[in-house]
Amino acid sequence: MAVDYKNLVRAIPDFPQPGILFRDITPLLGDGEALRAVVQDLAAPFRQQRIDRVAAIEARGFVIGAPLAVELGAGFVPMRKEGKLPHETFSAQYELEYGDAAIELHQDGLQSGDNVLLVDDVLATGGTMAAAVELVQQAGANVAGILTLIELTALNGRARLPDHEVVALIRY
Amino acid sequence: MAVDYKNLVRAIPDFPQPGILFRDITPLLGDGEALRAVVQDLAAPFRQQRIDRVAAIEARGFVIGAPLAVELGAGFVPMRKEGKLPHETFSAQYELEYGDAAIELHQDGLQSGDNVLLVDDVLATGGTMAAAVELVQQAGANVAGILTLIELTALNGRARLPDHEVVALIRY
Repeated sequence: MAVDYKNLVRAIPDFPQPGILFRDITPLLGDGEALRAVVQDLAAPFRQQRIDRVAAIEARGFVIGAPLAVELGAGFVPMRKEGKLPHETFSAQYELEYGDAAIELHQDGLQSGDNVLLVDDVLATGGTMAAAVELVQQAGANVAGILTLIELTALNGRARLPDHEVVALIRY
Repeated sequence: MAVDYKNLVRAIPDFPQPGILFRDITPLLGDGEALRAVVQDLAAPFRQQRIDRVAAIEARGFVIGAPLAVELGAGFVPMRKEGKLPHETFSAQYELEYGDAAIELHQDGLQSGDNVLLVDDVLATGGTMAAAVELVQQAGANVAGILTLIELTALNGRARLPDHEVVALIRY
């Protein structure tokens, strides 16, 4: 039975700042049946491929990426904000509304030639995800697909990820 | 075949600050077979009980808690640092070396009477985990168990969690 994902996402006005309508996925994550369905639905397109690792962006991406890794028999690799990873890292910048930020990947997190799925909770402008793609490339690995729970289609993040399959379960 | 977990944890001196020996679990998470074994081993003691939700502490706790929730057919509930959760929260303080910090739980994240597993990557002094227990109690739910990948036994965190079953896969 298909789960009505949208019904389990809550809209919160003015979070984290005025004018932003935040899509809160915690009701969906908190529903055991829905969480399991998310993992199954995201895994489905990749079951016939060799997936070596699932790399996810902190922190909400971890909640989706880690069970997906287990489901596919892959390893899990965190991509974190600057300074959070303890070992030597690759780094890639992305723009925020004011200024830049960076995400990092351990230099030994991926092996050259790995097939990697990239996971985050929301695809908005695609800036963070484009930085994540750059990290995979710095490691000499291949992006096998980009997975997100929610896609904000008006922001056209896909346009920044032209060479990759993008899978989104919920669209606004 | 049992996985040698310790062999997949890397010791990093002076992170995040001088004098701290950081136990880096990313090599373990990145190994698909080991990650799967972690989830199986943590789930094993609770398979005969009704587990409604798995609540995990950001951010590394998410990586272990989310696949555990899927494995047990439970929902996943995040416990996050102050100001990160968008809806109304319960809050509980814990001590840091200098000053206090707080973790939060959505007020509707758990239901009264839920059986809840608490998950984090490391159990050190037990301060954060004691705050997590307090959050579950504020919600009127029951702590069914406390799960951690690593226990730093010299810090005796278990002493602060006397009423609960504590499961740790790796001890130093």
